[in-house]
Amino acid sequence: MPHDRDRHRIIPGPAPTTDDDALAPDVWGFRDTRFALLPNGSVTLTGGRYALSGQELPDLLPWVERVMGVTLPRTGLQESSYPPAVPTARECTGFLSAARTLLGEAHVSVDALVRLRHGHGQTLEEMYRIKHDTLARVPDAVCFPADEHDVAALVEAARIHGVALIPYGGGTNVTDALRCPQDEERPIASVDLRRMNRIRWIDPVNEMACIEAGAVGRHLQVQLAQHGFTLGHEPDSVEFSTLGGWVATHASGMKKNRYGNIEDIVLDVHAVTAEGALARESVAPRESVGVDARRWLLGSEGTLGIITHAIVRVFPLPEVQRHDAILFPSFEQGFLFLRDLQRSGAVPASVRLVDNLQFQLSQTLKPRAEGAVALKRRFEKWVVTALKGFDPARMVACTLVFEGARDEVAHQEAVVRRLANRYRGMRAGAENGRKGYELTFGIAYIRDFVMRLRVVGESFETSVPWSDALALCDAVKRRVRDEHALRGLPGTPFVTCRITQLYQTGVAVYFYLGFSHEGVADPVGAYAAIEHAARDEILNSGGSLSHHHGIGKIRADFLPRTLSPEARRWTAAMKQAVDPANLFAAGNQ
Amino acid sequence: MPHDRDRHRIIPGPAPTTDDDALAPDVWGFRDTRFALLPNGSVTLTGGRYALSGQELPDLLPWVERVMGVTLPRTGLQESSYPPAVPTARECTGFLSAARTLLGEAHVSVDALVRLRHGHGQTLEEMYRIKHDTLARVPDAVCFPADEHDVAALVEAARIHGVALIPYGGGTNVTDALRCPQDEERPIASVDLRRMNRIRWIDPVNEMACIEAGAVGRHLQVQLAQHGFTLGHEPDSVEFSTLGGWVATHASGMKKNRYGNIEDIVLDVHAVTAEGALARESVAPRESVGVDARRWLLGSEGTLGIITHAIVRVFPLPEVQRHDAILFPSFEQGFLFLRDLQRSGAVPASVRLVDNLQFQLSQTLKPRAEGAVALKRRFEKWVVTALKGFDPARMVACTLVFEGARDEVAHQEAVVRRLANRYRGMRAGAENGRKGYELTFGIAYIRDFVMRLRVVGESFETSVPWSDALALCDAVKRRVRDEHALRGLPGTPFVTCRITQLYQTGVAVYFYLGFSHEGVADPVGAYAAIEHAARDEILNSGGSLSHHHGIGKIRADFLPRTLSPEARRWTAAMKQAVDPANLFAAGNQ
Repeated sequence: MPHDRDRHRIIPGPAPTTDDDALAPDVWGFRDTRFALLPNGSVTLTGGRYALSGQELPDLLPWVERVMGVTLPRTGLQESSYPPAVPTARECTGFLSAARTLLGEAHVSVDALVRLRHGHGQTLEEMYRIKHDTLARVPDAVCFPADEHDVAALVEAARIHGVALIPYGGGTNVTDALRCPQDEERPIASVDLRRMNRIRWIDPVNEMACIEAGAVGRHLQVQLAQHGFTLGHEPDSVEFSTLGGWVATHASGMKKNRYGNIEDIVLDVHAVTAEGALARESVAPRESVGVDARRWLLGSEGTLGIITHAIVRVFPLPEVQRHDAILFPSFEQGFLFLRDLQRSGAVPASVRLVDNLQFQLSQTLKPRAEGAVALKRRFEKWVVTALKGFDPARMVACTLVFEGARDEVAHQEAVVRRLANRYRGMRAGAENGRKGYELTFGIAYIRDFVMRLRVVGESFETSVPWSDALALCDAVKRRVRDEHALRGLPGTPFVTCRITQLYQTGVAVYFYLGFSHEGVADPVGAYAAIEHAARDEILNSGGSLSHHHGIGKIRADFLPRTLSPEARRWTAAMKQAVDPANLFAAGNQ
Repeated sequence: MPHDRDRHRIIPGPAPTTDDDALAPDVWGFRDTRFALLPNGSVTLTGGRYALSGQELPDLLPWVERVMGVTLPRTGLQESSYPPAVPTARECTGFLSAARTLLGEAHVSVDALVRLRHGHGQTLEEMYRIKHDTLARVPDAVCFPADEHDVAALVEAARIHGVALIPYGGGTNVTDALRCPQDEERPIASVDLRRMNRIRWIDPVNEMACIEAGAVGRHLQVQLAQHGFTLGHEPDSVEFSTLGGWVATHASGMKKNRYGNIEDIVLDVHAVTAEGALARESVAPRESVGVDARRWLLGSEGTLGIITHAIVRVFPLPEVQRHDAILFPSFEQGFLFLRDLQRSGAVPASVRLVDNLQFQLSQTLKPRAEGAVALKRRFEKWVVTALKGFDPARMVACTLVFEGARDEVAHQEAVVRRLANRYRGMRAGAENGRKGYELTFGIAYIRDFVMRLRVVGESFETSVPWSDALALCDAVKRRVRDEHALRGLPGTPFVTCRITQLYQTGVAVYFYLGFSHEGVADPVGAYAAIEHAARDEILNSGGSLSHHHGIGKIRADFLPRTLSPEARRWTAAMKQAVDPANLFAAGNQ
């Protein structure tokens, strides 16, 4: 019930019209954006959405070939045969009829391709299979509720008609979280929250907002900014992922140093569960009210209920935003800089350190240069290598994003400069910093491109104490190379890492792994085996099972190595207690 | 198993010899410290532990009498008749015999006063009853395990012999959390963790430490400092409360702006539960590993198991620590200063704002002044009131603690000065700031003193969004006065508040309430009724059930007003699932 205390709330207009048609069903991201081969052998990113878009990149493929010791095909590419044959829907007439009555015909779909899209996230295996094979099982229906009453009614209908439910946000997970369990005997309905994408209110005085779970990151950024606010939460997937998804996967954002990770941002979560709606009246800044069941939804990965909306902290748009980039002679030097920076208490919103291979990659993502531009680039290279004595095969780059009040940012910048000097850091400028930060979004498209060149690849990540981080990076790369050699796969694997988050007690490390599967019988199996070995090495090296991607199904078999049997029994007993019929049957964890 | 990655760990020596004898069994705190009436009518705090100790305070009682509109007795005080008659222990021979075999004779007690002490915390009702009445039920035995094997064996013995367990840390809770449920038919054993008080290791590289649950705050401060570290966690009870207690009550520390609240400090919790030991191998800086059962122990208030140890963040001792105090013409002006300070991003470790009554109280806690000191005080008062125009009946004080790197503190100080000017703030100096901060510890003894003068009093607290905070403070004070008048109680209630914590979305407010019960039949009942009304008013005003004290039994009846029935069913179902025999029968929440 609205209280007169809430008079100061802003009620934003309707959510932006969904531009779902802009999204590609079979590859990452927007339809208009993909890496493509030009007739001259250069690579380009189509469309105009990213800094990289429309540029001709002559160096990329030759460099990748050198690194991987293989020749990549320019013709006879492995083209996608999407759409695949989609498994026939199981019969669930009773549920469908109830759902159509509840939501209206238009908001219940049994279309094969709609069902297919709701049956997978973005793991390598899933993306490979929808293009070159098929998925063994996909949801039998997809429902699009408009509000929590719809959701509650769907849950009730599912119970009555014996249907299992799997919530769907942006479909960007990389944990097989949406993969339908093959042993589920009931029909499965996907509950897609895209219609529940409104900002219900913004409280500018207390800096909170109530936002529906289906709201997509890129829309939230725009809409909150119209009222002078930002959520500050920028996972790599922010363009496509949703608030509900962030809560369910326990997500982390690139600017967490300023805005926090999702557990810091979320003040309250509302969900429809098998027991009814978890809800409450007021949101306190901080509480001690015993065991707080609402927090269980963080990291629940669709298994405890359907998150309908959340109350989150929002931040006034920062007074200033500045980027910077600093080159270091080695990963070790850059790492020591990160540690001192973390200890300084003046950590910018985002700080990331790429290794040498990833630094080289960023250099190959530059357009063909001529005249003055080429001259400038040669001069810069000379300064770095000849004058400063940096070894091109060892040097690395750190990108920084500063956000905050003018004096706060000035203080951080002064600290960064002082500490960078300590480790022979050399400033590479705001423009390179901005490009480095934004590269995250453009480079996400490359996986689907190289798949056509018979390269399978993906990212994985971990978190690890400071003392173990460098050794972990080395050990994982070595293990990947060993496993790759052991299997007699072609060439050398492409394996690179960056440190993406700083914490008091350690860091998050993000790896990219790829290799050519020219002539390999089961590329997906080979990739899974190597990634599995890499995860084993991560755990051996003191790393965690996941920093922010989550468990889903892809890492569930490692859980016994990180949680005691009692802790897992507790979680299982709780799930059994609050969802005895396993209505929420995603089967993650 | 120790890993060679752990070579850099520091293994501190044994925990300090326990000085349990230094603690008073029947009043707050140390035996040597209590407020006492001097023959000349002044009040003094005995002992030498606090800044206040040993000083003659002539103004205190006359001022209290003016505020409360009553004459307090100087003779014929209501002296404690502690020890009370202690209920006979229930028979639990089998369990006792097992416990004695496990722990040794010396570490199992059935002594009446030991049992009594383990049957209560520090609520007004409990402290009143042990002095003037008795407790209806106390534990039937008290066990002192030495390690988690002992704890596990005790849990097993309790299961076999049908005994209920209640863990005991420092006994400082103010929620009736230790009160033995009267309807519990089994014998009750208290599990006192004081022997489990070691720092097992300090990891200076990753800034973590593994600490046993029974470690007491004041010992931890000393021992960590010997190795150059601090936990930074300073609840008002830090002298007496324990790490396990902080986790179980979801505690907050006065310096949380720098060090975080307990949920930020704790990286991992180990506990012995009805299912066995919740434990794991490694501690990551941050994880996404699904629903994390170990976090359920935060706020569990003894109902889910016995916390044995935790891995916590520790911080290098700050380069500088500085105090400051700022006077403001009114609570409203001070409040606006707090809000701007929170928004600045440069918030000192501790920031607290006392209302006018509490400011006046601090002025009466000054020793008799003569000569130069008296002159200086008169001059200061003249500056504040005549020159600056502050109204003594409206002005308030803000105390600040700065901790951190030199440049970080300098930056915070500059921001504080700039913002204080904006609201006519007048700096009152570091010494007043330090005294204001430390007053918390000395003033805690006053409740037991005024109880002898037939005044019942206690503190309670809440958290509330910024927009509702001032109105809440007013509404609660008004409601207390109304309820007091309604009951025809003597004089006027003493009710005062301070803002003790700042958050992005709101603040924590801490109230003191007291009144004379001269001629009142049921002082404890009258106090409970007024406090209950105050809590009702807090909830009406948008405040939370508790910011950091917790629920226990004292606030359990308000839970339905803050959590939906489904959320409470979830918690109940989880408890039932993980402790079906209700071995941990404290009955809180």
